[in-house]
Amino acid sequence: MRISELSNRSGVSVATIKYYIREELLPPGHLTAARQAEYDESHLRRLRLIRALIRIRKLSVNTTRDVLRALSESADTHLVLGHALGAIRATDDGAAGAERSPDVDALVEAMRWKVHDDAAARSTLAETLEALRKLGLPFHWTALLPYARLAEETARLDLDQLEGVTDPLDLAEQAIVLTVVLEPALLALRRMAQEHESALRHGD
Amino acid sequence: MRISELSNRSGVSVATIKYYIREELLPPGHLTAARQAEYDESHLRRLRLIRALIRIRKLSVNTTRDVLRALSESADTHLVLGHALGAIRATDDGAAGAERSPDVDALVEAMRWKVHDDAAARSTLAETLEALRKLGLPFHWTALLPYARLAEETARLDLDQLEGVTDPLDLAEQAIVLTVVLEPALLALRRMAQEHESALRHGD
Repeated sequence: MRISELSNRSGVSVATIKYYIREELLPPGHLTAARQAEYDESHLRRLRLIRALIRIRKLSVNTTRDVLRALSESADTHLVLGHALGAIRATDDGAAGAERSPDVDALVEAMRWKVHDDAAARSTLAETLEALRKLGLPFHWTALLPYARLAEETARLDLDQLEGVTDPLDLAEQAIVLTVVLEPALLALRRMAQEHESALRHGD
Repeated sequence: MRISELSNRSGVSVATIKYYIREELLPPGHLTAARQAEYDESHLRRLRLIRALIRIRKLSVNTTRDVLRALSESADTHLVLGHALGAIRATDDGAAGAERSPDVDALVEAMRWKVHDDAAARSTLAETLEALRKLGLPFHWTALLPYARLAEETARLDLDQLEGVTDPLDLAEQAIVLTVVLEPALLALRRMAQEHESALRHGD
C-alpha cells in the first residue's frame, strides 16, 4: 500500500509516519520507484504497536525505539519477556540509581522469587518503601507479602496468555501488551474495586 | 521551628519550601516577627506528603495542590478515599474525555461493583481496551474478569489498612498512600513476579 493508505488505515498522519521512519521506530517502505515506497501489513501492525506505547504508556520516542529494538532481537519466550521488562527500566528514571535494599531482598527471599539483582522493579519497590519511611508512614516489607502473593497470581494469568504463542512477532507484541500496555488497566481495576469496597464499608 | 530547621529535617531546600508556600501547597508559617515565621510538625508532615506525590508519583505542582485541597475538605473515610481516587483523574489526561464503554459497563456489572458512572478509572480501562483492539490484539472484557477478581482482593487489603484510622489528617495521608503512592510498588511486584514465573516456565 502507499503511505497515504497506511495513514488512513492506521489513523496516523503521513507526517508522523515519516517522522517515525526517520527516528527508526518504523522500517522504511520498499522502494518501487525513485520517490515511491510500498508498505505492507507488518508496517501497519508495527505502527499500531508504536502508537500504543506512545499514547497509552506515554513512552518517549527514544524509549519506544529501545523497547522495539530489544524485542526484535529475540524469539525465545523468556528472553522476549525479559527484554520487555528490561525496557521499562528507561521509564523508571528515578529508580535507576537506587541502592540495594535489605527489605526488598527479604521480600524476594520470603516469596522464593527468582529475580535478577539488577531488576529495575527492585529499585522501584525500594524507592517507594524508602519514601514511605521518610513520610513517617513506614510500610514494613512483611505488610507487602499479601500484595506480593496477589502479584504472583496476576503474573501466572499473564504468563498463561503467552502459552502457545510461537511466532516471534506475536510473542513480542503479547509480551509488550502484558508488561507495558496492560498496566494502566490493572491500576484502573484496582481503583474501581477500591471505590466499590469503600462504598460497601463506609458508604450510605 | 525556623524555616532552616524545617529544611534540614525534611531534606527540602529553603527555596523549594518558599516555592511550595507561594504555590499554596504548604500553609505559611505563623509570623512571630516582621520577617520571622515559625513552622511546626504539621508543616513537616505535609512537606513529606508533597515530596512523595511529586517525587514518587511524578505529579505536577497543580495536581498535587488539587489532591491536597480535596483531602483537607473532608473527614469521612469514604469521601476522603473518593477524593484521593478522584484527584488521580488529573493525572489521567488522555482518559478524561473518553466515551462510555459497553465493555467496561459489562465488566462492572459482572463484578457487581458499585462504581460511579464518571469514575476516571472507567475511562482509563475503556481506552486501554480500545487501544488493544486497534492494535489487532483484542482483549475481550471477560478475559479481564480474573484480573478484576484479583483487583478486588487487593482493594480489600487496601481498605483493611484504613480500618481504625480516625484522625482526618492520618486518614487523608493513608488514603493517598494507598491510592497514589503504592501504585508503582504494586506494578513493581507484578514485574518481579512475571520475571520469576517466566524463569520457572521457560528459563534454563
